[in-house]
Amino acid sequence: MTMNRKLVLPIDRGSPLPIYYQLKEALKQQIESGALKPHERVPSERELEEAYHISRMTARRALEELEAEGYIYRAQGKGSFVAEPKIRQGLLWLTSFTEDMRERGMRAGARVLRAEVVSDERVARKLGIGSGEEFVMLQRLRLADGEPMALETSYLRRRFCPGLEGHDFTDRSLYSTLQEEYGLRLGRAEQAVEAKVADGFEAELLGVKPGAPMLSMERITYLDDGQTPIEYVRSIYRGDRYKLYVELKRR
Amino acid sequence: MTMNRKLVLPIDRGSPLPIYYQLKEALKQQIESGALKPHERVPSERELEEAYHISRMTARRALEELEAEGYIYRAQGKGSFVAEPKIRQGLLWLTSFTEDMRERGMRAGARVLRAEVVSDERVARKLGIGSGEEFVMLQRLRLADGEPMALETSYLRRRFCPGLEGHDFTDRSLYSTLQEEYGLRLGRAEQAVEAKVADGFEAELLGVKPGAPMLSMERITYLDDGQTPIEYVRSIYRGDRYKLYVELKRR
Repeated sequence: MTMNRKLVLPIDRGSPLPIYYQLKEALKQQIESGALKPHERVPSERELEEAYHISRMTARRALEELEAEGYIYRAQGKGSFVAEPKIRQGLLWLTSFTEDMRERGMRAGARVLRAEVVSDERVARKLGIGSGEEFVMLQRLRLADGEPMALETSYLRRRFCPGLEGHDFTDRSLYSTLQEEYGLRLGRAEQAVEAKVADGFEAELLGVKPGAPMLSMERITYLDDGQTPIEYVRSIYRGDRYKLYVELKRR
Repeated sequence: MTMNRKLVLPIDRGSPLPIYYQLKEALKQQIESGALKPHERVPSERELEEAYHISRMTARRALEELEAEGYIYRAQGKGSFVAEPKIRQGLLWLTSFTEDMRERGMRAGARVLRAEVVSDERVARKLGIGSGEEFVMLQRLRLADGEPMALETSYLRRRFCPGLEGHDFTDRSLYSTLQEEYGLRLGRAEQAVEAKVADGFEAELLGVKPGAPMLSMERITYLDDGQTPIEYVRSIYRGDRYKLYVELKRR
């Protein structure tokens, strides 16, 4: 197989930057500029080794990091390919996964892992309510066009939505159900965003490797009076598929 | 050494959740509720093994994941201790690292790794300007009370701030310098947030292990006319020390 002609990557042996890093950044640039398109094959370790007179280790490291950062994916026995661009998720509006996916023309779905009534002191404390209250706990693997994207664990105050655990959330939005079946309108939410690495459980569910980068989010949702907490959600989003956007203003 | 009496952790052997996971979550709860305080010692693998009749592997995995998630840190030969809570960073106002740290009563500092004039097509494309323009590129390891927190690489359009590379940014805010020396007022910024894992270079600079979770941010900053891009910044923040906050509104 011959190297793609447009892939003449600038490698500067006099630079203080390591060669693998230059190679990685050059390939990123090709991907971001659209010179390499989603699902197009990228050169193999051996092709990079031969074309740039670098060691196999150097080529491997560049490709491994591009994979870890979500720029490429590997297909067993077929080589490496450019990944789909990450899903851009705005951090401004309180939206549900279902709404987010619909806006992108993707089909939202879920595999419901747990739907039960629980007590949880830690959640009660997060919401600032009495520790005696019960929650409907709903744990869902969220799918976009059938592909696992996030693991979402929601705790709803049961007194506001008794029987919620009896609904089938495979194809149904939680927020629509709250509004349509219980007349609950949501107002605002406080959200925290952290980086973490996937543990074994999460990796298996989401189809990534243990140790893969993940966006971990925590949300407290309030009713439209702006004061009554109704929901606590913990979500783990695939770091290779998600990118968050926000607009900052100067004070 | 005896186990701390308040640490009677609820482990349910009938639960579908793995034991290591229950142990990890129980320890997290102790840390978040303040029952275990920053820099307090947490039980060792051996102590957990004996107290809960679990395998050493199970205890190790719980502690390893707590460390990876930034809840505890290990001191060679001394054991594991509760980490400082993460620094909460709001995602609303366009602020500098210096301003953020000052607000928290911490001293901001920097180790300047590079300060030079460069051309960079990729940056020009991100800013939507001609590829012929030069940038002042400033790469800084950002310190809070002397501890490395982030690696920040800024590209400023040179035509707006010629000679900027000549200033010493060890103890000086870039944004204050732009305003005071060049009369440039910043207006707003677009920021992207992603999760990634530390590569070898970043890990060494930031004092974390390769593969540690990191928050990767990209920012395009505009002048106060809201339209003229002035800066492109790429930052890598330690995921074990940073947590981002944002308020969401219902549309």
